[in-house]
Amino acid sequence: MTPLPRALHRELAAVLGDGWRVDPNERLAYAYDNSRRQALPDAVALPVERGQVVALVRACRAHRVPVIARGRGTNTTGAAVPVAGGVVVSFERMNRILAIRPGDRCAVVEPGVLNGELQAALEPHGLFWPPDPTSAGYSTVGGNLACNAGGPRAVKYGASRDNVLALGAVAGTGEPIRCGTATTKGATGYDLQRLLVGSEGTLALIVEATLRLTPLPPARRALRALYRDVAAAARAVARLMAQPVTPSMLEFMDATAVRLAREVGGADLPPEAGALLMIEADGDAQTLPHAVEALMRAAAGEGLVAIDDAADEAARERLWAARKALSPALRTLAPGKINEDVVVPVSRIPELVDGVQALAREFALPIVCFGHAGNGNLHVNLLFDPADAGQGARAEAALARVFALALALGGTLSGEHGIGLAKRAFLPQAIDPPTLALMRAVKAAFDPDGILNPGKLLPD
Amino acid sequence: MTPLPRALHRELAAVLGDGWRVDPNERLAYAYDNSRRQALPDAVALPVERGQVVALVRACRAHRVPVIARGRGTNTTGAAVPVAGGVVVSFERMNRILAIRPGDRCAVVEPGVLNGELQAALEPHGLFWPPDPTSAGYSTVGGNLACNAGGPRAVKYGASRDNVLALGAVAGTGEPIRCGTATTKGATGYDLQRLLVGSEGTLALIVEATLRLTPLPPARRALRALYRDVAAAARAVARLMAQPVTPSMLEFMDATAVRLAREVGGADLPPEAGALLMIEADGDAQTLPHAVEALMRAAAGEGLVAIDDAADEAARERLWAARKALSPALRTLAPGKINEDVVVPVSRIPELVDGVQALAREFALPIVCFGHAGNGNLHVNLLFDPADAGQGARAEAALARVFALALALGGTLSGEHGIGLAKRAFLPQAIDPPTLALMRAVKAAFDPDGILNPGKLLPD
Repeated sequence: MTPLPRALHRELAAVLGDGWRVDPNERLAYAYDNSRRQALPDAVALPVERGQVVALVRACRAHRVPVIARGRGTNTTGAAVPVAGGVVVSFERMNRILAIRPGDRCAVVEPGVLNGELQAALEPHGLFWPPDPTSAGYSTVGGNLACNAGGPRAVKYGASRDNVLALGAVAGTGEPIRCGTATTKGATGYDLQRLLVGSEGTLALIVEATLRLTPLPPARRALRALYRDVAAAARAVARLMAQPVTPSMLEFMDATAVRLAREVGGADLPPEAGALLMIEADGDAQTLPHAVEALMRAAAGEGLVAIDDAADEAARERLWAARKALSPALRTLAPGKINEDVVVPVSRIPELVDGVQALAREFALPIVCFGHAGNGNLHVNLLFDPADAGQGARAEAALARVFALALALGGTLSGEHGIGLAKRAFLPQAIDPPTLALMRAVKAAFDPDGILNPGKLLPD
Repeated sequence: MTPLPRALHRELAAVLGDGWRVDPNERLAYAYDNSRRQALPDAVALPVERGQVVALVRACRAHRVPVIARGRGTNTTGAAVPVAGGVVVSFERMNRILAIRPGDRCAVVEPGVLNGELQAALEPHGLFWPPDPTSAGYSTVGGNLACNAGGPRAVKYGASRDNVLALGAVAGTGEPIRCGTATTKGATGYDLQRLLVGSEGTLALIVEATLRLTPLPPARRALRALYRDVAAAARAVARLMAQPVTPSMLEFMDATAVRLAREVGGADLPPEAGALLMIEADGDAQTLPHAVEALMRAAAGEGLVAIDDAADEAARERLWAARKALSPALRTLAPGKINEDVVVPVSRIPELVDGVQALAREFALPIVCFGHAGNGNLHVNLLFDPADAGQGARAEAALARVFALALALGGTLSGEHGIGLAKRAFLPQAIDPPTLALMRAVKAAFDPDGILNPGKLLPD
């Protein structure tokens, strides 16, 4: 039934009871994530409490069997795929919101709570948790933390790492640890909780999270600004980020994306628009009009083609339509898509976009850039036909050049998707040998036998 | 001249040239910090560049000689005191601002730059670096990072850890490392840069920092709200923090502090005021009045005695006078002061203040609480006469109870001062054994021979 050592299987079946699965058909459901990669785990554990996780990690450590934490498998890098076999620990049953404490602006949750469920529970308290990945409706808080998920709101409110106060976790040693406190300040020992965020399950399994919450702004308003070219839009981004009203979203589309939205998606955009910014402000009824004015002033400048202000929620939806038309439009160009999320300093966005378009020409593949401009975090979409081996190879070759370009511009490989399997071969280009050696030493401190999510994040 | 091994002395004299000091009188100047503790280093190094720091750490490691990083010695915990001898590395000559990049909202600095110098250089660009410890005029950025310094602005803009993008450092192995990138988002490997912040020189020596900057709000306005008692003020703090206009400062004074400011400092405060909040908003001319209104609404409520709004900078200074009268007034009460900076969840502030006043009665010592209420980070000042051994012993005993109280309320030992020597004996009460063991393992990964700032932060 399972390739696991029989003693381990028996031990874990006793620990997990109904939450221990070895049937191959059930295991298959935990073999994949949104990276299109797949590898069958030897077993699946569905713990309901921390003690089971401790017992499981200890038992697996004794047998040197891999342990792979899993939220809902929405990540795009293969970080949840059990490439070395072992036990997938799915946190779907540890999905309780343990406390919401509005006076302390924090919530305590188990890792399997869906991001969207949490937001719904927080809304009556006038609070929210800032990370808003596209997957928010069906990705877990634990997964968001493991990958340091971001989203459009990160430009104002930060990504997952910026919104965690404390974590309970089980290290690769099998020891339960508690890092941080439910306070917004702390200078008491090493900050292990932020180190765990983004570590993709390679250091510890998160079993409880105390999250930093933010008051929900009662209102928001969107602007759509069209620019002649990317350089003009990028200058506007720098102006927008240099004045005191930080936009709550600042999304970018390059010329190809604008053309696609217009020609394929049917968006109402003038042909002279070579770049688009979606800009949002949030606040209360009194301050919001002034915030919108400040953003409009900053958005204006040389190369601005048009700017539209959405007075109400319906108008906001219309303005966002161009952005939302983009993803379906991309699919009409080619069946295959590599979506990477490199990040560069904001001032280098024009060079990134220009460089990517040069690569599109060199490799004869459409490449479309859009994303979170206020953080310099662009989604670079390489489009190709997977049935055409030549195109696939060209896409891979172009991708390597995209990473090299982002690094040359002082940026890095990933802003919010993480490394996983997909980008680990590139990590030595982003991180120098002594720093990489230190990351390995840190990994060994948390997980001396290397049982946690082997084959991910750090290259061999 | 120096107790160092002769070979090491010769090697480091060659590496550092004029920046190598072994004269006992010169060494004495680097023996202390603001903790009133003192220990003579065996030598002082004043490097001018990273290569010297690498050579120094490698040489000291070969001889197992301690290396103690030092900014300007303003910290209050003894973290910069060379209790185990060795080489103090003062960064006073690595004090260049290497780059200010307004378009990327970042600055690159050497660790010896003074916080105040940096702010002055940023101001013409309309930017600032948020950490604002009281020592800002004469403390260094490197020291601020090493201790995770905060200050009143942290309530809106975060402490040092929240405002760093990348660090260059030299680990205890002698290896130069580079962690993070000059981007506000990153999901590329382990977040070692935030781990280094607050590690008090026990993991690595910071030799370069890329700092996250924030646009300087053009205007600010202060409110002073007086409450009947601490409970009423604390409820107001919770209301203030639960609405969308985050105050740029939210400072608290307890009844003893208010009475002192009035009776000794001559501040104009009514006798029925049992607690005081200083509330500031910042923004531009358009949004600021609305922000102030929102804060006034939130500050109002049961137990409010009076609220004053400073229309201009002169009025602002008058409102702050009560707070500023406090420190000199404290000195009139007793010559000795232990100032600790525990932190608790905001909702537990009343229990902390009540508990501290019960300890003041039990130990027959004045204890005055004030500080950064929006973060729950209160400065608890125990006043005593050091010439009176009984008072000194009572103050120490009361201090231990203050820490126990903060921990029992779900808080921790320090919000912004750090652990250093002063609080390391208490660390096992704040951090459980497996987590402390993991911190030691992380320390060993960075500093396998334990040469960096021995005797600090982690207990033996």
